[in-house]
Amino acid sequence: MDKVRLEAFSDGVFAIAITLLVLDLHVPHLESGESLAHALGQDWPSYVSYVASFLTIGTVWVNHHTIFRLLARCDRPLLVINIAFLMCVAAIPFPTALVSRFARTAEASTAAFVYGGTMVALGLLFNALWRYSLRGGLVSADADARGVSGITRSYLAGPVLWCAATLPAIWSADASLLLFAGLVGFWVLSSSFWGREAAP
Amino acid sequence: MDKVRLEAFSDGVFAIAITLLVLDLHVPHLESGESLAHALGQDWPSYVSYVASFLTIGTVWVNHHTIFRLLARCDRPLLVINIAFLMCVAAIPFPTALVSRFARTAEASTAAFVYGGTMVALGLLFNALWRYSLRGGLVSADADARGVSGITRSYLAGPVLWCAATLPAIWSADASLLLFAGLVGFWVLSSSFWGREAAP
Amino acid sequence: MDKVRLEAFSDGVFAIAITLLVLDLHVPHLESGESLAHALGQDWPSYVSYVASFLTIGTVWVNHHTIFRLLARCDRPLLVINIAFLMCVAAIPFPTALVSRFARTAEASTAAFVYGGTMVALGLLFNALWRYSLRGGLVSADADARGVSGITRSYLAGPVLWCAATLPAIWSADASLLLFAGLVGFWVLSSSFWGREAAP
Amino acid sequence: MDKVRLEAFSDGVFAIAITLLVLDLHVPHLESGESLAHALGQDWPSYVSYVASFLTIGTVWVNHHTIFRLLARCDRPLLVINIAFLMCVAAIPFPTALVSRFARTAEASTAAFVYGGTMVALGLLFNALWRYSLRGGLVSADADARGVSGITRSYLAGPVLWCAATLPAIWSADASLLLFAGLVGFWVLSSSFWGREAAP
Repeated sequence: MDKVRLEAFSDGVFAIAITLLVLDLHVPHLESGESLAHALGQDWPSYVSYVASFLTIGTVWVNHHTIFRLLARCDRPLLVINIAFLMCVAAIPFPTALVSRFARTAEASTAAFVYGGTMVALGLLFNALWRYSLRGGLVSADADARGVSGITRSYLAGPVLWCAATLPAIWSADASLLLFAGLVGFWVLSSSFWGREAAP
Repeated sequence: MDKVRLEAFSDGVFAIAITLLVLDLHVPHLESGESLAHALGQDWPSYVSYVASFLTIGTVWVNHHTIFRLLARCDRPLLVINIAFLMCVAAIPFPTALVSRFARTAEASTAAFVYGGTMVALGLLFNALWRYSLRGGLVSADADARGVSGITRSYLAGPVLWCAATLPAIWSADASLLLFAGLVGFWVLSSSFWGREAAP
Repeated sequence: MDKVRLEAFSDGVFAIAITLLVLDLHVPHLESGESLAHALGQDWPSYVSYVASFLTIGTVWVNHHTIFRLLARCDRPLLVINIAFLMCVAAIPFPTALVSRFARTAEASTAAFVYGGTMVALGLLFNALWRYSLRGGLVSADADARGVSGITRSYLAGPVLWCAATLPAIWSADASLLLFAGLVGFWVLSSSFWGREAAP
Repeated sequence: MDKVRLEAFSDGVFAIAITLLVLDLHVPHLESGESLAHALGQDWPSYVSYVASFLTIGTVWVNHHTIFRLLARCDRPLLVINIAFLMCVAAIPFPTALVSRFARTAEASTAAFVYGGTMVALGLLFNALWRYSLRGGLVSADADARGVSGITRSYLAGPVLWCAATLPAIWSADASLLLFAGLVGFWVLSSSFWGREAAP
């Protein structure tokens, strides 16, 4: 299994999962006398979820490449971890749909837990991917040592932060969903500014 | 993040979004005594929307490549702008479904506003992509200066024209939808004729 | 617009359209007392349509590559014809769903006409693609002249045969659908046997 | 038809089919007084099916590449067998949906038969692909002879084991579904441990 093909397959799954999010945007059924503008307005959690999940998958895709660019080769166990990881990525439209549907109901906390739980699982598998690569000697010998340890630290933060943002859903789903949005916003902004250096 | 991979990912999103449009074509539920031919005929706004959105995404895809062919390299902020841009492209099946569903109802204006608004947002992000590339020095040094300024002018026209085509929806949704169709037709025809020179 | 990217984008649309066909296979709603086996058995037109449309898109994909392998370059009008052609390919899941749903009802003829009509349109655009390439001088100079004229003849047969298979739907939708299946079977078998020579 | 393009197209179908599995995860409709947590818990066969089908398609994808890496060239009949094979791969979301829907009903056996039958068909076509390649002289001359005969043996086991796991559904659908899960687990684990050697 060569690295190029593994990346191309992963990219395909990322591109499809990110585009399938649009299927969670539903044409509203109007109640009698209701205007379309009102119905669309009521549906705002769908649009926020769409944006948040789109940016999340986009960010994860960028980080996935950051890892693979550092790998010199790949082996079967890495392949299996990568498939489990993609299984979480491809599942994201489902918790997104749950949050869209239940965000403003009494069941919002459960939806927030499923969403946050998926992200924690994703983060853990991402760390598994990276740590297996490090221990298995798959990382390219000429990879910058400081960059490598920086990645180890910053990727560890992912599941910890998602976990911290999910727990408040016990008391308030809204708090949790706001923290999710904050996390996504922070990653998008930080990756724009940190990553200022151009890649040829 | 290398340019080739960014283009391949973008192409994937374009190809999926354009193909998902078919999901807005629905098998009709026949009223008792209604013929299938009649039901399909009633559904003509779906087919017009399918064609218009397909050609729009196709045209945007061509322009996206025109930009990327001129870039020498890319950086993180460009990547983030590109993800926001793809978020609009991938969303197109949703306003298309709204127009298909509400084109001949009292809510047609709202549907036209959402469709036009998506296109204006798409156009603005497209300009952001191009202007950031210009200012950030990402455009290849040997790019033809006249070609570059021609692109700047013609890409600016996009959101302005979509905006101008959307506003009449205040008075008449039909006028607005006709203008949308006209814009798409104009871009398709002009890109066939202007672009006569062959690319090797 | 370079040829490699145009082919990759077309391949993406082919792969997605062919895979979306599975969405026309529906989990049946059982009537009270009905067995799943019976309900699935009643749904046989769906499975036949799935197989026929899958093989059709597969065959069209093979022919699309046959053309592009012979092209030395491509230009803007070719690009526009290709997008119109892909618009037909991407639409195939819709007439497939119509035939699946209405094959054994009084509306079968209309469904057969829509299916056949889509295939005729596809065939005509395919011929347009090829003839434009020939006249526009896009075909590689070292392409085998006999091969080229063989393609011209055999591609012309496509829309003519689909048209001939569609017309009997005026009298009998079943006859028409059987002819469609026959056409697909013929192309699959003939391309297996004719194409015996290996491509490196 | 060159090998690279055939692999890229197959990869596309694999990536899309594997990602479409998420469409079988449905946002539950809550009965009055029912909690979302309870409704999601009731739906566990969907999540097990999602994981099993995802890992199955992932494993099949790995094996597909193992074959194609050994091929020196490909011809038209191989192409046709490959399309028939992909037709089974792309269909997997349908039996997955059947099992998700009927796993805990009186119709579970029928659903298990359809799922198992699809896998048997997939396994037979996979063997056809490999055996045709061997007999047709498509396998690269420098392929390791012991590796080749190992593949022949291990690929034969696939349809035999799926068949053996499907038959118990006559008596107990649950037994059959457990065996399916066992098969998938076995392949995932064995491919992680057997395949320890790194591929450059």
